[in-house]
Amino acid sequence: MQEKADCLFCQIIKDNRDLIYQDENTAAFLDIFPVEKAHILVVPKNHSDTWIETSETDICATNITAQKIAKKLLTIFSNQIKGFNIIINNGKAANQMVFHFHIHVIPKFNVDQGFQVKHIKNENEIKNLSETRKLLQENLNRKE
Amino acid sequence: MQEKADCLFCQIIKDNRDLIYQDENTAAFLDIFPVEKAHILVVPKNHSDTWIETSETDICATNITAQKIAKKLLTIFSNQIKGFNIIINNGKAANQMVFHFHIHVIPKFNVDQGFQVKHIKNENEIKNLSETRKLLQENLNRKE
Repeated sequence: MQEKADCLFCQIIKDNRDLIYQDENTAAFLDIFPVEKAHILVVPKNHSDTWIETSETDICATNITAQKIAKKLLTIFSNQIKGFNIIINNGKAANQMVFHFHIHVIPKFNVDQGFQVKHIKNENEIKNLSETRKLLQENLNRKE
Repeated sequence: MQEKADCLFCQIIKDNRDLIYQDENTAAFLDIFPVEKAHILVVPKNHSDTWIETSETDICATNITAQKIAKKLLTIFSNQIKGFNIIINNGKAANQMVFHFHIHVIPKFNVDQGFQVKHIKNENEIKNLSETRKLLQENLNRKE
């Protein structure tokens, strides 16, 4: 496994410290500042600073582990979990705190508690929608 | 492709309406109520109501497409994007609005604008951490 010397999450994986799940490519442990019960972080064992730098293999492996754990949580907390928020923050500006790529799996036990999604419409960008769409259509379809 | 008759996103895919990207298994289009410029939704072409019901193949395909698009956005908006928030809401209680699994890819142009992550510590659950960890360690390692 590719690890980084001064990385907190690499150390947790290496020491097998407080892990709640692991397989060949991924590991999972509790967020020590949980927003809700069973707020879990899923990580690749291979170090990558951010989501955007993570290999496709590890993108797949971590997201499959996240789903596998969420399914188990439904059984463990039978009928108590009403939903999940799955969050990845990429970059300091986007609130990434530890620079080893991780997926937050946050169960929703009560609508009014835990992680709150605030979907605030950007009225200015609503007006620009067709312009932005055109820009992206032109550029995302561009051949490499 | 497996589609659902009354599903808005299946219809968008079928009509090839305002798509900004598509490949064999996935498609992408702009959120019509964007929280930020280039707020994109990535979906599997196969219908599934929620993230937790999505096949592993589609979990991988959509997450790889999300990353691929994010990398392109860095080029399209050269040096303007400081980060990304990648959000999946699973279930009405967790703020899922349209019941065709989708990944929000939200670029962060400015720290104080766009999607805001509020990581509010649950002090009560911090106290329960070792108890929750024990419960999960016992149950997540349990053989099927």
